[in-house]
Amino acid sequence: MPELRHDPVQKRWVIIATERAKRPFDFTRGNDAPQSGKCPFCDGNEFATPPEIAAFRDKNAPNGPNWKVRVVPNKYPALRIEGDLERAAAGQYDRMNGIGAHEVIIETPEHDKDISDLPIDHIACILTMYRTRLLDLQRDSRFRYILIFRNHGAAAGASLEHPHSQIIATPVTPRTVAMELQSARAHYQLKERCIFCDIITEELREHSRIVSADDDFVTWCPYASRFPFEMMLAPRRHSHDFAAMDDAQILRLARHLREVILRMKESLDDPPYNFLLHTAPSFQVKNARVGYWTTIEHDWHWHFEILPRLTKTAGFEWGTGFYINPTKPEDAAQYMRDVRLK
Amino acid sequence: MPELRHDPVQKRWVIIATERAKRPFDFTRGNDAPQSGKCPFCDGNEFATPPEIAAFRDKNAPNGPNWKVRVVPNKYPALRIEGDLERAAAGQYDRMNGIGAHEVIIETPEHDKDISDLPIDHIACILTMYRTRLLDLQRDSRFRYILIFRNHGAAAGASLEHPHSQIIATPVTPRTVAMELQSARAHYQLKERCIFCDIITEELREHSRIVSADDDFVTWCPYASRFPFEMMLAPRRHSHDFAAMDDAQILRLARHLREVILRMKESLDDPPYNFLLHTAPSFQVKNARVGYWTTIEHDWHWHFEILPRLTKTAGFEWGTGFYINPTKPEDAAQYMRDVRLK
Repeated sequence: MPELRHDPVQKRWVIIATERAKRPFDFTRGNDAPQSGKCPFCDGNEFATPPEIAAFRDKNAPNGPNWKVRVVPNKYPALRIEGDLERAAAGQYDRMNGIGAHEVIIETPEHDKDISDLPIDHIACILTMYRTRLLDLQRDSRFRYILIFRNHGAAAGASLEHPHSQIIATPVTPRTVAMELQSARAHYQLKERCIFCDIITEELREHSRIVSADDDFVTWCPYASRFPFEMMLAPRRHSHDFAAMDDAQILRLARHLREVILRMKESLDDPPYNFLLHTAPSFQVKNARVGYWTTIEHDWHWHFEILPRLTKTAGFEWGTGFYINPTKPEDAAQYMRDVRLK
Repeated sequence: MPELRHDPVQKRWVIIATERAKRPFDFTRGNDAPQSGKCPFCDGNEFATPPEIAAFRDKNAPNGPNWKVRVVPNKYPALRIEGDLERAAAGQYDRMNGIGAHEVIIETPEHDKDISDLPIDHIACILTMYRTRLLDLQRDSRFRYILIFRNHGAAAGASLEHPHSQIIATPVTPRTVAMELQSARAHYQLKERCIFCDIITEELREHSRIVSADDDFVTWCPYASRFPFEMMLAPRRHSHDFAAMDDAQILRLARHLREVILRMKESLDDPPYNFLLHTAPSFQVKNARVGYWTTIEHDWHWHFEILPRLTKTAGFEWGTGFYINPTKPEDAAQYMRDVRLK
C-alpha cells in the first residue's frame, strides 16, 4: 500500500509509492520503455492494460480495438483506489494510506500523434473525457483534489511515448492548489473580484505577454513566469469548474489549445513539456452543490499551465523555491505570436 | 539589469535573468560547455575568470596559480551586486531590480576531483570559505538571505564540470526558507523547543532512517523525503548559524560530510546531486546582533540538504507541489548504512 507522509517543517505531503519501489540499481541501469510494436496503448494491444474505466467507441465491446479515447487504471499506480485512509500520527509526524485514483487517458490509438497533430474534433473528445472523469471522481468523498496532467517527452517525465494524459485524485489538498486558493480568497474578500479575472483583464490591456486570444479563451506568458516560454490558458469569462463546460465550449477550447501548443512547438522545435489543469478543488465543488461552500464559484478560475522543459532545476531552485528564468515573458510571447501557422 | 518579479497567485518571486537572455534557438542547439583543457576554473587559467573576491593561497599574489580554494564573481550572474533595489508596483504586480550577489567557490585547482575525493583538511578549507563568505555578505543590508549550494553532474544543473559551489544572496526571503522559519517559530512558541532538535532526537531514537551519526553531526533520510536517497545533515547540538562554527567543528563536519557523500556515491554509482546549506536568514542574524531579533537563535537549526537527482520532476509535481518518491526513506538509509567504505 502506498503511503502519504507529511513533512512538519515544509508542511508538504509526499507519496511514498511502495508499489513501484526502487532499489539503487533500478536508478543506475537504463530505463525499461517498451520496444516499438509492443506499446500497451496502441490499437490492438488493449489486453496489455488493466480493463478500461471508460472509452469513446462506436457501440463495440469494451477492451477491444476501434476506439477514439480510452481510460484505464495506471498499471503502477502512485495511489490505490481501494481501502481506507487510516489517518494517524507516526511519532511527531503524520501519515495516511495512499488512497486515491491514478488513471491514464490514452488520447488516440495512433502511437506517433501528439495532441496538436490531431483534428480539432478529436482534441475535443479528449477534453470531453477530462470532463467525464472529473464528474465521476468528484463523487468520491475521500478525494480532495483531482489533477489532470500531461507529460510530453522523456525530459518532461513521460515514461511511455504514446500520447496520453494522467489523472491523479489525492486525499489531501495539494500545497500549490491550497496556496492559489488562499490568494484568490483573500483577493475576493478584499475586492469582490476574482484575482484571475483581474490578471486576464490586465494582460489583455497590456498585450505584450499575450500569445493568443479569441472570444472565449486567452493564453499568455505569466508576468512572473518560472520557466522560459511558460504559458497560462484560461477562459475569458469567469468559471471555476472545467467540468461545467458544454460541448460547444469544449470544441472552441480544443481549437484554442491546438493553436497555442503548435505555436510553442514551432518556436522551440517540439520541446518536452508538461501541461496541467487547475480546476476548482473537487472537495469544494462537491460541497458547493449541497450548499456547504458557496464561495468557491467566486474564488476559483480554472486554467491550464503549459510548461516547456528547457532548463534544469538545480540546487538554487530546490533550496529556495525561487526560479531563475533566462527568457523575458514578453520576449517569449512575441516569439510565439510571430509564428506563422500553416 | 536582472529583475525580480512577484506572482500574486503563487506568492512566488522569480528572477528574470536578462543578462543570460535566451532566445528559442539557444534551447534547441547543444550546450556550450568549454572543451577540456580550457576550463576557466583550472590552475593556470585564472585570467579566464573575473578577479577573485577571496582565496586560500600561500602569500602569493591574487589571480595567479597556486591556491587551494578560490572565490570569483559568477561571469553570468543571476543577480547584480551594484545598484538600488527600486522596489515598485507594475500594474497589479510587484517588481524590483535584480540586486544580489552571485559568486562561485572553486573548490580545488584539480578538474576531476569531486568534494568527496579530497582530503579532509581540504574539505575543511572549502567549508571555512563558506563561513568567510557568509560573514562578509551578512554585512550587506540589502540581502535577506544567502544560499550556498552545489550542483554535481549535468542532470543536477551543473554547467561546468570542475568542482565548485555557488553563493546567491537574494534581496527577499525565499519562499522555502520563509516556510521553514514559520513552522519552526510556531513550534517554538507552542513548545519552547526547536523543531529540528525534536526531529533529530526522534530520528536518533527510531534509528531506521539514520545514515550516519557521530558525536557532533547526524545525517538521516527525512521521514517525508521528496526524492529517493534524499538526506538531511545537521549538528546534534542546537545551532542556528553555520558561520558560528569554530575551526575544530568545521574539521569534524568535513569528516562527516565526506563520509555521507561517499555512502551516497557508492550506493548509487556516482549520481548527479544537489546539496544546499540552509543557515539562518542573514537579515535576522544580522539584526539579532544589534538586538532587534532575539528569537532567531531558538527558531533555526542550520542543516544541509543532499538531493540525488534520480527521478524526473513531471506534470504532477509541478501541478501540485506534491512529490512521488519510489524509495522508502528507511530502505534508502539502510542501503547507505550498509556501504563498506574503503
